[in-house]
Amino acid sequence: MLHALPDALCQCLAKRFGKRFSQGESIRLQHGRDESVHPPQMPQGVVLAESLEDIVAVVRLCAEHGVPLIPYGVGSSVEGHVLAPQGGISLDLSGMNRVLAIHAEDGDATVQAGVTRKQLNEALKGSGLFFPIDPGADATLGGMAATRASGTNAVRYGTMKDNVLATTAVLADGRVLKTGGRARKSSAGYDLTRLLVGSEGTLGIMAELTVKLYPIPEAISAAVCTFPDIESAVQTVIQTIQLGVPVARIELLDALSLKAINLFSKTTLTEAPTLFFEFHGSPAGVEEQAETVQAIAGELGGANFAWATRPEDRTRLWQARHDAYFACLQLKPGCRSFPTDVCVPISRLAECIAATYEDIARVSIPIALFGHVGDGNFHLVVLVDPDNAREMDEAAWISSRVVERAIAMEGTCTGEHGIGLGKRKYLVAEHGDVAVDVMRALKQALDPANLLNPGKILP
Amino acid sequence: MLHALPDALCQCLAKRFGKRFSQGESIRLQHGRDESVHPPQMPQGVVLAESLEDIVAVVRLCAEHGVPLIPYGVGSSVEGHVLAPQGGISLDLSGMNRVLAIHAEDGDATVQAGVTRKQLNEALKGSGLFFPIDPGADATLGGMAATRASGTNAVRYGTMKDNVLATTAVLADGRVLKTGGRARKSSAGYDLTRLLVGSEGTLGIMAELTVKLYPIPEAISAAVCTFPDIESAVQTVIQTIQLGVPVARIELLDALSLKAINLFSKTTLTEAPTLFFEFHGSPAGVEEQAETVQAIAGELGGANFAWATRPEDRTRLWQARHDAYFACLQLKPGCRSFPTDVCVPISRLAECIAATYEDIARVSIPIALFGHVGDGNFHLVVLVDPDNAREMDEAAWISSRVVERAIAMEGTCTGEHGIGLGKRKYLVAEHGDVAVDVMRALKQALDPANLLNPGKILP
Repeated sequence: MLHALPDALCQCLAKRFGKRFSQGESIRLQHGRDESVHPPQMPQGVVLAESLEDIVAVVRLCAEHGVPLIPYGVGSSVEGHVLAPQGGISLDLSGMNRVLAIHAEDGDATVQAGVTRKQLNEALKGSGLFFPIDPGADATLGGMAATRASGTNAVRYGTMKDNVLATTAVLADGRVLKTGGRARKSSAGYDLTRLLVGSEGTLGIMAELTVKLYPIPEAISAAVCTFPDIESAVQTVIQTIQLGVPVARIELLDALSLKAINLFSKTTLTEAPTLFFEFHGSPAGVEEQAETVQAIAGELGGANFAWATRPEDRTRLWQARHDAYFACLQLKPGCRSFPTDVCVPISRLAECIAATYEDIARVSIPIALFGHVGDGNFHLVVLVDPDNAREMDEAAWISSRVVERAIAMEGTCTGEHGIGLGKRKYLVAEHGDVAVDVMRALKQALDPANLLNPGKILP
Repeated sequence: MLHALPDALCQCLAKRFGKRFSQGESIRLQHGRDESVHPPQMPQGVVLAESLEDIVAVVRLCAEHGVPLIPYGVGSSVEGHVLAPQGGISLDLSGMNRVLAIHAEDGDATVQAGVTRKQLNEALKGSGLFFPIDPGADATLGGMAATRASGTNAVRYGTMKDNVLATTAVLADGRVLKTGGRARKSSAGYDLTRLLVGSEGTLGIMAELTVKLYPIPEAISAAVCTFPDIESAVQTVIQTIQLGVPVARIELLDALSLKAINLFSKTTLTEAPTLFFEFHGSPAGVEEQAETVQAIAGELGGANFAWATRPEDRTRLWQARHDAYFACLQLKPGCRSFPTDVCVPISRLAECIAATYEDIARVSIPIALFGHVGDGNFHLVVLVDPDNAREMDEAAWISSRVVERAIAMEGTCTGEHGIGLGKRKYLVAEHGDVAVDVMRALKQALDPANLLNPGKILP
């Protein structure tokens, strides 16, 4: 049973934030759940922040009263990151949505943490630049940095760890920390930027970040290719990566994912194991890459290479891919997803996926498989009724099987979703006791009262 | 005045390491200096480590006796990183030079920390892969990771921060920490790998590391182009980067650097502001890149585009570039270099270099300028007689001018050399008090007795 929020805290928050501080049931429920199967855990209050100063004020008040604080973007996380297992204040940063500066000549932009990836790309229109990191949801850049997110372009452009140059963050005691800078490289001291990236709001609350931008390639072409089985599709990916073809995107979707996409996005894609490709470069470079990949796919039984060269066709294709998760959820109305997100060295990918299908054959619940296989990263969307104990047991079984297999293959329990609540139990298995003790020591050093997103990451 | 090493410690070290523990003057002197102008500060003893277990044993003994420990590779650092201002034991890792595993199919290799970059590339012969990070010296990979090193290929392949996947490190209390893994990406907890990379041996001693490898490009071509002045050369770089041409290397050298190289490497390069280029890709891709860059250079007055297409010519060219630092030292026999290593956003590079030349014109000592300008990173080699107070004053003046200018331009006081002893005084100016306090808190959390490379990085 949680203690109620201290009256003095509520009075201070109400005085400073007016209607931007609320303890209403519906806003608390909205901030106490994410896109996953985790049952909601509501915060005791919500503050809508609009500035760095707002964050500092809330952090100071929470520190003074010993009340937990959970940063919140758009709630698109899938491992329970924004839930409030220990109550406290949810600090909603979605109102901090200003693009502060675009330095086109240096290829970087500084944004408030609540700017979403699509909003940034909208702001970049006409600049000749784009921001490539694209998780399925239109997440905030703060949330993406906090979970070390990636997406379909990561095989070419890296993840948030590679694309955040600098941050402004608020520490647990309210001090404002600046990390990194706008130089493309630096050897000046500990890499605090990358300590914050992936720390899921447990070490500091990112208020602003500077991210890398890339020139829109001169030529882009996308293609879809179907395969007789998953194995041939995966082998095509492995050979493409091992040859060093600089594909921008190479995504695997299984037949069930395609069925879901066709229903959700009104597309007419063949419902078979499929690779989605995208090539970026000069016209000649893109043509070379496409020829190489077509030759590899052809030898492995890939057929029906369908090209999307018009921008609107490419956009439709990738929007369908981004909607795959939501599309799968529609396959079973009222269900939630038990997400998995493993990543293995590419040499183990075929074996890992094959063994995963053997597990899928042993359960009754529908499970779709897709992923950013160029990085060795794939997801299962395990469709469950959270109130059905048998389904939840099956989902937990398959999730643990896949994670344990990935770790045994020198991979990771999460390629891009983060640890949150859901993966804490695997942290020691993946990193060992000493690494987890070091993580605890860092948390203790920066947030000794354990007020920033408590209960997340550390088991 | 330092206390002598405790007798009990010396006895334990002698017993365990035999001749691999020494307190001889010459080996201590060798381990108490680096390639820079910093006056030697000798350790009180040297241990030659050959295994992870050796490191653990030395760390435990030093912890027990409260004696500082300084990791040492080949001594090629340039900011005093390996000096022993508080005495203690220099732990020489150069004997830990085994390549432990090459996973060609995954594009990674695991090595002991004492393996040098050239040794790794030698071991990769026949695999079709290479390791791109190339500081001037043939440094150890452990040392390169510790200083977050880069080199000529960083504009295309990133720095050590981008290319270390995993580490095995020994903490200050002797525990063995494993960080990262072989998956290409992970969101599983705090990024301890990147906390160690760049920590200069102050948070843990890296014993092994897993690094990324890259396919040797199908086509490589290199070129040299001279310019009427530095400004035109720098503008060529800026336009090339802003256009997004994926150059592998783009290096600026001034006339004095070329003169030094010609004398040292017996080359006959034109002694004028010069860019060295290298292009990696498919044959058509390389040709496209070269045409684009030639067009940019031509418009800016670049002339005499000389191509090196044969591997042996390319090797000679890049060896000459790598030797530039040592070549410059020969310009003034007996001198040492007062190195600088700033990095600025590319939009400020021309202005930064122009202002630097105004400073150079105001001093009497010879100063060469060259650098990895595709990243906005350049070095001055300030040639001084360390015993000449006026020369040392001039060197200190120009170094501080360049660093302060770079920081004012949102750049960094060190792009790739690290902080060591020499740049500590700029850490607060660059990152602010809060960031430096956070760095101190991390150091305190992981090395409370301040025994790992004490006196480095933190002011």
